[in-house]
Amino acid sequence: MHRIYFDNAATTALAPEVLEAMMPFLTEKFGNPSSIYSYGRESKMAIEAARKTVARILNCNPGEIFFTSGGTESSNTAINASVNDLGCKHIITSPIEHHATLHTVENLEKKGIVRLSIVKLTDKGHIDMADLESLLANSPEKTLVTLMHANNEVGNILDIQAVGELCKKYDAIFHSDTVQTVGHYPFDLKNTYVHFINGAGHKFHGPKGVGILYVNENIQIKPLINGGSQERNMRAGTENLYGIVGFAKALEMATEHYNNDSEYIRGLKSYMAEQLTHTFAGVSCNGDTNGRSLYTVLNVSFPKTDKTDMLLFNLDMAGICVSGGSACSSGASSVSHVIKALYNGKSETMVPIRFSFSKQNTKEEVDAVIEKLKDLI
Amino acid sequence: MHRIYFDNAATTALAPEVLEAMMPFLTEKFGNPSSIYSYGRESKMAIEAARKTVARILNCNPGEIFFTSGGTESSNTAINASVNDLGCKHIITSPIEHHATLHTVENLEKKGIVRLSIVKLTDKGHIDMADLESLLANSPEKTLVTLMHANNEVGNILDIQAVGELCKKYDAIFHSDTVQTVGHYPFDLKNTYVHFINGAGHKFHGPKGVGILYVNENIQIKPLINGGSQERNMRAGTENLYGIVGFAKALEMATEHYNNDSEYIRGLKSYMAEQLTHTFAGVSCNGDTNGRSLYTVLNVSFPKTDKTDMLLFNLDMAGICVSGGSACSSGASSVSHVIKALYNGKSETMVPIRFSFSKQNTKEEVDAVIEKLKDLI
Repeated sequence: MHRIYFDNAATTALAPEVLEAMMPFLTEKFGNPSSIYSYGRESKMAIEAARKTVARILNCNPGEIFFTSGGTESSNTAINASVNDLGCKHIITSPIEHHATLHTVENLEKKGIVRLSIVKLTDKGHIDMADLESLLANSPEKTLVTLMHANNEVGNILDIQAVGELCKKYDAIFHSDTVQTVGHYPFDLKNTYVHFINGAGHKFHGPKGVGILYVNENIQIKPLINGGSQERNMRAGTENLYGIVGFAKALEMATEHYNNDSEYIRGLKSYMAEQLTHTFAGVSCNGDTNGRSLYTVLNVSFPKTDKTDMLLFNLDMAGICVSGGSACSSGASSVSHVIKALYNGKSETMVPIRFSFSKQNTKEEVDAVIEKLKDLI
Repeated sequence: MHRIYFDNAATTALAPEVLEAMMPFLTEKFGNPSSIYSYGRESKMAIEAARKTVARILNCNPGEIFFTSGGTESSNTAINASVNDLGCKHIITSPIEHHATLHTVENLEKKGIVRLSIVKLTDKGHIDMADLESLLANSPEKTLVTLMHANNEVGNILDIQAVGELCKKYDAIFHSDTVQTVGHYPFDLKNTYVHFINGAGHKFHGPKGVGILYVNENIQIKPLINGGSQERNMRAGTENLYGIVGFAKALEMATEHYNNDSEYIRGLKSYMAEQLTHTFAGVSCNGDTNGRSLYTVLNVSFPKTDKTDMLLFNLDMAGICVSGGSACSSGASSVSHVIKALYNGKSETMVPIRFSFSKQNTKEEVDAVIEKLKDLI
């Protein structure tokens, strides 16, 4: 059975060129980057070259990039450091953040360490900027604003510049979970008011188990994970050498053809959205699909019926990989917290399906999925 | 130049068979283990198979094994959870622990969260069991004992059973940093009183960037890294799929030929210790080399002279990889905290060199290093 993989927001295939860049470090070049002999220094140099590549692409200083085990660890580090090291006593976030953010801030609130405010959303699921400003204006405490750049389930994109300007105005710390946009969006960190962003290699055809945390040079934080002096004392533990090399290579490849790739993928998304809404009665798009929305993610709702209830299962049987929400919370059987927050009261009558695309997908695959959906519904 | 790699306690070469086991997951089998379609479930099954392999080898339940990004993260998790979730207000540790332990407990002490006691060492650098018992007997608070199984610099092995029995007697939580012994020692966790142990794949010819934390089923802790429900809600973040598969394969291979391999490596160590002490005046072994000592690690001191001061540098120039201490603290120019603790007052006249071996090393390599040392000294 030919598999159609439309779940690229969950994870992407490792690009063969990325694996090729990793292979020397999976074979002969295994020296510990912290070892001082030349064989270790070669590994260290590979890591520092990777750091420079990442910094160049995101337009920041290499000293602002720290390699971690992934996007979740990076978000945890940013949020905990904002509280422990930067004095934040108030956190503003949204109801549609990834659990890496939500569970972390909820824990801090539960322990009585911070006050937590949940910013309102607009009809289309964007951050209500007036409400955000009001929350900031009424915060006597040092505040952390943590808002994701692109929502992993519906694709809505934050106006990161505008939020940054608000944070600047109110002297707030700003963390943006950019796991869905690093590798899919042209960052310019030197001209963006943001203290922390994070990325995960496996979201853009890089390896799993490796990520980055950008820490703006104007702040000083302590590590989440203590021990050796790796990553300039900011992230202890022997470095995931091949992962780091792969991360940089994947980011480089993602950037190189960004304009063409993003236009191509946006085309697939639009085409699929049209086909779905024209072919099936009652199908609607979730989030701001035709507005400020990431070109990789399309989330639609089918009306709940006996047939659509089994849709994910039946698509799987047909070799079509899509998801009901994010992979990270797919253990839950019910509708995700994101859809619930966006469609309060209506979500129980919806069967949301996320289709997420990469440059490896084709229009023919979209057609095949539409045909299969016709069979199933 | 033929390289001689005698720094296997820092990191080991990835075994080709391990890479082979990882390759399907670095190529076609890239599904997110949390995705519910069959392609994701295949990844999940690979992780669960790896967990079962690890549990079988360590003789514990699969539910007690959690995959992490490495030994350091695992130690951080164990120590923080002991304090945050298990009520420990007093930590007993030793002066020769890895920085992953020392820096973590020092942080907790600095914040006023715990009282910290440093157990005395015997002449040979072992834990003074009488002092440990006295510290435990005089601890009104719930106590965490965190003592490494084999010291990464000098190889001294803890009597983990005896320490476990003491912890049992005084109802203490026991964490043993077993990063140097997982893959090099036959564990029997069902018959060992210990709450946490940890391992890192790259110490036994497995991949970097992946480790385990064993959490005894009789205790319940919360994660260090919050987010998705991976690892049964104990370690959030998309799993390092190939790393986990590689970890299990490497542990399986390390166990399969354990008796032969360990005897062979012990032979190399003994032979090198003999050659060094017979050939060079004033060379002495650090730690309990001929007693309770890990067969992979040999640490010797050369008397400090102009020539020995340059020894690491000159060995490197000759293609010989050895270290002055652990890789994790090799940035520091002075003698390590371990040697200082063991040879208080004398350490400044010593040039300690750690030679650490794997099954890939040979007697001919030992001879070549001895010859080179004759040239250099």
